[in-house]
Amino acid sequence: MSRPKPRIALTMGDPAGVGPEVTLRALADPGLSALADLIVYGDQAVLDAAAERMGLRAAGTRQVVDCGCLSLGMFEPGTVTAATGRAGYTYVDEAIGAAKAGDLDGIVTAPLNKEALRAAGIAFPGHTEIFAAKLGSERFCMLQYSDVLSCTFVTVHVGYREVPGLITRARVLEVIELTREAFVRIRKAEPKIVVLGLNPHAGEHGLFGESEEEKFIEPAVRTSRDRGWRVEGPIPPDTAFLKKRLAETDCFVCMYHDQGHIPVKALAFEKSVNTTLGLPIPRTSVDHGTALDIAWQGVADPSSMFEAVKLNATLCGSA
Amino acid sequence: MSRPKPRIALTMGDPAGVGPEVTLRALADPGLSALADLIVYGDQAVLDAAAERMGLRAAGTRQVVDCGCLSLGMFEPGTVTAATGRAGYTYVDEAIGAAKAGDLDGIVTAPLNKEALRAAGIAFPGHTEIFAAKLGSERFCMLQYSDVLSCTFVTVHVGYREVPGLITRARVLEVIELTREAFVRIRKAEPKIVVLGLNPHAGEHGLFGESEEEKFIEPAVRTSRDRGWRVEGPIPPDTAFLKKRLAETDCFVCMYHDQGHIPVKALAFEKSVNTTLGLPIPRTSVDHGTALDIAWQGVADPSSMFEAVKLNATLCGSA
Repeated sequence: MSRPKPRIALTMGDPAGVGPEVTLRALADPGLSALADLIVYGDQAVLDAAAERMGLRAAGTRQVVDCGCLSLGMFEPGTVTAATGRAGYTYVDEAIGAAKAGDLDGIVTAPLNKEALRAAGIAFPGHTEIFAAKLGSERFCMLQYSDVLSCTFVTVHVGYREVPGLITRARVLEVIELTREAFVRIRKAEPKIVVLGLNPHAGEHGLFGESEEEKFIEPAVRTSRDRGWRVEGPIPPDTAFLKKRLAETDCFVCMYHDQGHIPVKALAFEKSVNTTLGLPIPRTSVDHGTALDIAWQGVADPSSMFEAVKLNATLCGSA
Repeated sequence: MSRPKPRIALTMGDPAGVGPEVTLRALADPGLSALADLIVYGDQAVLDAAAERMGLRAAGTRQVVDCGCLSLGMFEPGTVTAATGRAGYTYVDEAIGAAKAGDLDGIVTAPLNKEALRAAGIAFPGHTEIFAAKLGSERFCMLQYSDVLSCTFVTVHVGYREVPGLITRARVLEVIELTREAFVRIRKAEPKIVVLGLNPHAGEHGLFGESEEEKFIEPAVRTSRDRGWRVEGPIPPDTAFLKKRLAETDCFVCMYHDQGHIPVKALAFEKSVNTTLGLPIPRTSVDHGTALDIAWQGVADPSSMFEAVKLNATLCGSA
C-alpha cells in the first residue's frame, strides 16, 4: 500500500462489560491490523487482567493509551458502578481529545452502560451525544449499518412521547442529507434512500395521527428529490422491511429508535454497526450493549466489533 | 370425521381489491374444503366476473350468500370508491348477522380498504373494530398469528401520539388474558408470553420516557404471574425478536401497531393471519391489504387467506 494505514482508536467501553474482551479480540486479529493501526484507549491493568482471566492475547503497551482510571480490584466484572461509568466515559473523552489534536483518523467504541454513566453523574445518554457535543457537531444522526439493511434516525434516545415534537421538516431533511453523504462514500454511487412515516400505515392520508407525514416528512422528501437524489417516502413503516425492498434500498430513514432498531436486530443481529454521521472523523461502534450477564467469560461474540473496525476503515478511505 | 365440519364464512372484501381473487382460490382448494364448509358473503356477479377475467374456477351459487351490492360495470377494479367500501362493509355486516343468528361457526375476512370505508361514511377503521362493535365485545384485541412469531396489541389503529394515553394497567392485563386464552387453545398447553416496553430499551429504568413501564406494564405482568401464568416483561422492544427468543415465545404482547407489525411483516410476510381475540366466534383475516396495484390480475398470493382459513378451523375446534 502506498497510502499509510489510518490510525483508529478502540475505546475499551465500560470495564465491567464485554468491552475489554471484544477489544482484545479485535486487537489480536491480523485482518483488522492490515486495515488500520489500532490503538486502545482504556486501562492497561484492566486489559491485562481480562486477557489473563479469559486466555486472550494481551495488549502490548505500545497498542494502549493507558488512561489510568481503574484496575481489577476496584470493580466487579458484570456489575456496573459510577466508577466504571466514569472510566468508560474517560476513554472516549481522551480519544476525542486525541482526534481533535489530529492524532487519530477514526474512533471505534466498545459499549458504555447508560445506567453507569448516569450513576457517574454524566448527562450524556450514549456515545452519539458525547461525540456530537465534544466535536461541536450540531448536525448529526445515528446510522445502523449492515449488509442486510441500514437505518438512520431522525430521533433516537428519547422517550416515546417526545418523538413527535422533534420531527420537523428541517430535521428530516438534515437526516436525509447526512444519509446521502455517507452512502455516496460507502457505495460510491447515488444511493437509494427510503423514508418511513411516523404513524401506522404512514397515517393513511390523515386517517391516523396528526398528518405528521404531510406536514413534515413529505416536504423534506420533495426537497431532496428536487436536488436529483433518489429518495422515496414517507412509506408505511410495517411494510418497509420486506425482502424485495431491502434489496433495492441502501438506507431507511426512520423516525424513532424502535422503528429502525427492531428490524435491524431482527434481521441483522450482531452483524450491524452503529455509526454517528455528521462528525469530523468517522465514529463507529458495536451494536450491542455491555452484556453484563456474560461479561468476562470469554464467550462474547466479537463480530460486531470487527464490522465496526472495517466500516470505520472504509469511511477513513482505507479498504 | 364424527364431528360435523364447522361452517365458516369468507367475506369477499373490497370488490376493487384482491379479495374476490383470493376468496375464489380458497373456495377451490380441496384441503380447505376438507377442514370446513366455506360460504362466501359477497356478490355473485362480481365473483363470476373475477373468475372469468382471471381464469379461476367460478363459485357455485350454493357456496355464495349473494348480498346484491355491486356488479362489474358499477366499479373499476383497482380503484376503491364509496360504493366498493360500502359493499365490502355490507358483506361483513351480513356475515356477522348470520353468526349472531347461529348460522356460522367462524368468519374469515378478505381485505377492506380504509379509505373506501371512510368515503362511504363508515366510521370503523377496520375489521377489528367492526366485529367488536357488532358483536358487542368490549374486551378484545388484535392477534397477528404465524408459525414464526405471533403478536397481540394493546393499541392498534390509532395515531402515534395517541398510544401512551391508551396504555393502562387494566388494558395491558386484559390483552395478556386474551392472549393466554387463545394460546391455551392453539397450543393446548400453558403458553409463554413476552410483554414489550413502550420506550426505547423499555425505558431503561426511567432513563427514557415517563416510566410507562413501571406504572402500567410491570404491574399487569406481576398480576398475571401471580396467577401462575408464564409471562415475562416488559422487555426492550428492539431485542424482543431475536431468533432465540422467537423460538421460546408463543406470543409477544405489543404496545402499538408498528412495534409488532414491523417484525411480523419482516419475518413472516404473507404467512401471518390477522385475528380478533375476545369475540364470541373466531374471526381471522388475511394480513395484507386490498393491493390495488395488482388487483384482478390473477397474481395475488393467496397463502395468507389459506392460513386464515386453517387457523379459523383450528379455533373452531376442527383440525
